[in-house]
Amino acid sequence: MCNEKKYLAENVHLSDDGKSVVIIDQRKIPNELVLLTLSTAKEMYDAIKSLAVRGAPAIGICAGYSIYCLSQQIKAENFEEFYSQFKKDKDYLNSSRPTAVNLSWALNRIDDLVVDNKDKSISEIVKLIGEEAVKIQQEDIAMCKAISEYGFSLLKEGDGVLTHCNAGPLATSRYGTAIGPMLLAKEKGVNVRVFADETRPLLQGARLTSYELDKAGVDVTLICDNMASIVMKNGWVQACFVGCDRIAANGDAANKIGTSGVAILAKHYGIPFYVLGPTSTIDMKCKTGDDIEIELRDESEIKDKFYEKPMAPINVKCYNPAFDVTDHTLISGIITEKGIARAPYTESLAKLFED
Amino acid sequence: MCNEKKYLAENVHLSDDGKSVVIIDQRKIPNELVLLTLSTAKEMYDAIKSLAVRGAPAIGICAGYSIYCLSQQIKAENFEEFYSQFKKDKDYLNSSRPTAVNLSWALNRIDDLVVDNKDKSISEIVKLIGEEAVKIQQEDIAMCKAISEYGFSLLKEGDGVLTHCNAGPLATSRYGTAIGPMLLAKEKGVNVRVFADETRPLLQGARLTSYELDKAGVDVTLICDNMASIVMKNGWVQACFVGCDRIAANGDAANKIGTSGVAILAKHYGIPFYVLGPTSTIDMKCKTGDDIEIELRDESEIKDKFYEKPMAPINVKCYNPAFDVTDHTLISGIITEKGIARAPYTESLAKLFED
Repeated sequence: MCNEKKYLAENVHLSDDGKSVVIIDQRKIPNELVLLTLSTAKEMYDAIKSLAVRGAPAIGICAGYSIYCLSQQIKAENFEEFYSQFKKDKDYLNSSRPTAVNLSWALNRIDDLVVDNKDKSISEIVKLIGEEAVKIQQEDIAMCKAISEYGFSLLKEGDGVLTHCNAGPLATSRYGTAIGPMLLAKEKGVNVRVFADETRPLLQGARLTSYELDKAGVDVTLICDNMASIVMKNGWVQACFVGCDRIAANGDAANKIGTSGVAILAKHYGIPFYVLGPTSTIDMKCKTGDDIEIELRDESEIKDKFYEKPMAPINVKCYNPAFDVTDHTLISGIITEKGIARAPYTESLAKLFED
Repeated sequence: MCNEKKYLAENVHLSDDGKSVVIIDQRKIPNELVLLTLSTAKEMYDAIKSLAVRGAPAIGICAGYSIYCLSQQIKAENFEEFYSQFKKDKDYLNSSRPTAVNLSWALNRIDDLVVDNKDKSISEIVKLIGEEAVKIQQEDIAMCKAISEYGFSLLKEGDGVLTHCNAGPLATSRYGTAIGPMLLAKEKGVNVRVFADETRPLLQGARLTSYELDKAGVDVTLICDNMASIVMKNGWVQACFVGCDRIAANGDAANKIGTSGVAILAKHYGIPFYVLGPTSTIDMKCKTGDDIEIELRDESEIKDKFYEKPMAPINVKCYNPAFDVTDHTLISGIITEKGIARAPYTESLAKLFED
């Protein structure tokens, strides 16, 4: 009964009877596709807190459906009794990840709706909550679709696209942002191939992006982050598509660590580099990227053992060159036991062997 | 009795009684410092084959000492008997890693010496073999020292150096190449700090480079490969030093995957990028880098679990920014649900919010 494609396209949704939230357990990807059915407030809280559901839009959608299911369970004689329990449920869910903006955004949106309709019957209010939760998801799908269409308009048959980290369906709802154009291309019968940076230290590219594209039938090749240069040099990349966490008014874009490096390589090789995201990530109060504070994370992510299971779908293609060639125009000097050779190297290197 | 600094400085050496080869088991680094004493041909063969000793120069030195120890064990009445067993030992050792150039180079060098001195007594020949083995190591030390001095001449107090992969003492004998200038700086009381790329997929930077520098007391910070851009942007890097596997006549340099990316980033940020290596790696018959064939390795290195133990010395510093900022000058377009914004962004982004 588990239709992978369906659940991947909408990784957060209502159960068939409309009483529970069903999510993909993202902690198990890529090794297992496990669906979790969340019926109690505790189960919903735990799913968000433990990152079973992650990605800002996906968390918002999960919160909307969760508060809808909990509202159905409220036994109340009047609005005051209903709203009192609704607030308790809302505050509890909201405390699961205090810094996740979309979580409180979705819950507040539904809270406003409840207050605006307090004169209606409780059953009507619950119905409206359900409709609003669906709307939150549909808006996200429409936004991702629009972004994906714009991105797709830049692609043509046979193009190679390099992406970094994960901005796909698991983090959003259907399509995603940076991955959306390639999923759309697949739907439209346009063949593109994707190179997915594994994205150290947490391997979102290996674990999630390569998984999503592979499941969707898109030609994907997983590479280590330091292989982007050789892949571009090989002529395999016609565009880079990446997501974003915040965009400053001057266009400087904050995204997963390593994104700026991809952009510099792309510029060097003359490959266009595009940032994809909703306008809500553009912060016009932020003048330049210098105003964006960068989160520093725990050192253990780099140096401790971190993944004892396979790090990517075992069938996914990988490109694993052991070496690459650095063009002489990029080298300031070659230091040998006979001295330092400098450009022009054809002369200076030959001179090393003259005596 | 295990003096870490001594053994790290000469990771392959003769035992005190001169009858065995002592090596650091590099497979156990950074989690344990284990010394292996190799007395039989089988033990020597296994150590090379299993990568307990690795790094082209280190393998050559190990081969020299190994054939010396085995020669001492030969019971022979005359040169023919001696040489017959010598050849057997040599061929056996040589078969441990058929593609390792330094292995056959060192063994052939000693074979030539034996043949050149066949009129001498067996005990005299054995003594000459021992002297030649020591000479192979001393030459390597002198060469690394010379390279390190040239590299050091480019550094000044307080400089930051970024390095990729491992070209240090474990792979050579004392100093190494790309790491040598920083070890020399430490000896001379000049403070430099090093940023070591972890170097996926096999993590030589995390496992070996950060270990070696840390043991030597050099200020080292481990980063993921995709963090090189932000570290350079932060102004922390004044020079990049990398090793090399082969250098073409025009200066194009093949080295561990990812090196070319570091060079492009360095150029973008205006940081000098130096390649360090012995003249033996310069291949004047190779016109450009296009003539260098790149080894493709197994996909499992990227996608399968690979390191269930800590990947670096647990006390080593790491820098782990979760995001970086991509300068707007590197972005071809910002794709939102409202359309594609292009430079100048200060205008085009503001326009997105106008309606």
